Amino acid sequence: MPHEQSAAPDDSALTPLRRRIDDIDGQLLELISERARLAQEVGRVKHARGEPVYRPEREAQVLARLAQINAGPLPAQSIRAVWLELMSACRALEAPLSVAYLGPEGTFSEAAALAQFGSQIETQPCASIDEVFRSVEAGGAGFGVVPVENSTEGSVNRTLDLLMGSSLSICAELALPIEHCLLTQTGTLDGVTEVAAHPQALAQCQAWLSAHAPQVARVAAASNGAAAQAAAKTPTLAAIAGLGAAARYGLKPVAQAIQDDPHNRTRFQVIGRVQTQPSGADHTSLILSVPNRPGAVYDMLAPLAEHGVSMTRFESRPARTGQWEYYFYIDVAGHQLEPRIAAALEALRTRTAFFKLLGSYPVKA
Amino acid sequence: MPHEQSAAPDDSALTPLRRRIDDIDGQLLELISERARLAQEVGRVKHARGEPVYRPEREAQVLARLAQINAGPLPAQSIRAVWLELMSACRALEAPLSVAYLGPEGTFSEAAALAQFGSQIETQPCASIDEVFRSVEAGGAGFGVVPVENSTEGSVNRTLDLLMGSSLSICAELALPIEHCLLTQTGTLDGVTEVAAHPQALAQCQAWLSAHAPQVARVAAASNGAAAQAAAKTPTLAAIAGLGAAARYGLKPVAQAIQDDPHNRTRFQVIGRVQTQPSGADHTSLILSVPNRPGAVYDMLAPLAEHGVSMTRFESRPARTGQWEYYFYIDVAGHQLEPRIAAALEALRTRTAFFKLLGSYPVKA
Repeated sequence: MPHEQSAAPDDSALTPLRRRIDDIDGQLLELISERARLAQEVGRVKHARGEPVYRPEREAQVLARLAQINAGPLPAQSIRAVWLELMSACRALEAPLSVAYLGPEGTFSEAAALAQFGSQIETQPCASIDEVFRSVEAGGAGFGVVPVENSTEGSVNRTLDLLMGSSLSICAELALPIEHCLLTQTGTLDGVTEVAAHPQALAQCQAWLSAHAPQVARVAAASNGAAAQAAAKTPTLAAIAGLGAAARYGLKPVAQAIQDDPHNRTRFQVIGRVQTQPSGADHTSLILSVPNRPGAVYDMLAPLAEHGVSMTRFESRPARTGQWEYYFYIDVAGHQLEPRIAAALEALRTRTAFFKLLGSYPVKA
Repeated sequence: MPHEQSAAPDDSALTPLRRRIDDIDGQLLELISERARLAQEVGRVKHARGEPVYRPEREAQVLARLAQINAGPLPAQSIRAVWLELMSACRALEAPLSVAYLGPEGTFSEAAALAQFGSQIETQPCASIDEVFRSVEAGGAGFGVVPVENSTEGSVNRTLDLLMGSSLSICAELALPIEHCLLTQTGTLDGVTEVAAHPQALAQCQAWLSAHAPQVARVAAASNGAAAQAAAKTPTLAAIAGLGAAARYGLKPVAQAIQDDPHNRTRFQVIGRVQTQPSGADHTSLILSVPNRPGAVYDMLAPLAEHGVSMTRFESRPARTGQWEYYFYIDVAGHQLEPRIAAALEALRTRTAFFKLLGSYPVKA
């Protein structure tokens, strides 16, 4: 007999349980097939009316309802993962959805695309954020996934610039967690005198560094990747970066998840030509600008306060044109088709020198 | 009213269909919860007997059975994707499975881990293949996913060496497609005189290059990544590489999927301490060596022929020890617990100077 092989286990206790699971799987398959046929009918109706197959707000509602009626034992995140694949499969029956994103180097962008659309899509990795926009604008891809806010990289400015000039709408948003690690050549801090990272990463790991490596001097680097590259050449240098950088530069983690905020995340937005309907839990993004005079920003925001609309994000960027001082990227809670939001937006439009609505989209409840 | 916004669509045709889908979703949720409770019972039985929760052969059987009884409209691959998440969710209820793999740089390894285990796992990216083995051997991860055969990279020799010295078994196998692209600075072949790539990649794209770029000289590079890096500095140089390299080095694709074999793939194996039971469609991997004398290899293989066992892979590697000339990595169709295979293996063992069984594992039917 071959060695290293345990005998066949006694399955008398497991066999009846497995039969019942097989039986349930058969029933599940029938129901899922029935659901797919209904989705095909929905697709035919939409097709006849020239409407898009993918409705992010409808999928958000389905997931929210399931989270509400779920009595366990599976946690909400597992139910979500199963239905994501189920909806992805039903969608793909109609017409395979093509999704563009920033290519494999930004593994996070691909992960975001799969987390939003499930696995039954045609992925279209692009060499740049510009290409993601171009591909969706030209119809090569139905949707694009772009990073919009990243705790350590500056590159999302490119996304903001492209949103400004594009005719595409934001139709969904999601966030993925980001983890910082302390990396050295040996996997220990022995002999290490300095730690390098992007200033934002250093700031995000301040508490951990003060507690665990108070004697190590902090050095700013152009990026966490550059810091890891330098650490790979310098035994006395540690770097803060992701495990990807450890793999790439042959470094070892001294500690993982050292960022002070365990909920450190990168936010992505989905761009496309779909105009969503209200899902019940939506945000609306817009870009504004006002003439450069005292009190202008305060005045600009008055309509939001008057209509009881809350801002969830307010970011200013210097304008390149010189025509205005700043552009303001603003997210508000609510959908542009809700009367209260529509009224506030209309008032904003009349008060601003520049006004662009980027879209309303469902957010996770 | 805000601009760029279509009116709310008339949903009178869609609403009844969506109600039926919601109704089915409710039934699905009940069945899935019942399935999860049964999986918990299975887990309790296994736990009492000290058996592992993850049985790759059982999951392979569940998927094979579903593929068989599935009458559509969803294709087998969609059913597979849904059940992968369902089984992943049920498994995670018991004890979250921790899976080690070669870190984010090899995006493919992470994709392979998710394709094998579904999303409800604790992922453990490692800096090297050695670390993947160490982590599983030390119990830090329950399973590891390692590349074993890669059409363009030589690094899998490391996996073969580590398998030789490890006490872990191969308990599953899967393959992911690999796509070669022709990349240049401009996205065209204008002014391009040379194309660089790893020799294997050049060979794999021979037909395409002869048909579409016969005037371009072919140049061997250390790796496709190195070729892309060189092309980023040289306007007259094209590179063959993946889209990841395009993103990393700012190159543009002239053409995608130019490999002559559209089924170009990387094969991964899952390593762990689980000894699988026969699933009905299994392979068995082993390492052999024979003394260096004429006819030794032929003699070595005789037991396989005598017992009617077919080889699915035969690979030789020079031994480093000098004690034997070569090691042979052999895969055969069948499970080591099938009497015919067991008899052949026993006969092989008596004829070889070195014999190591790496494991039996389910393969996709």
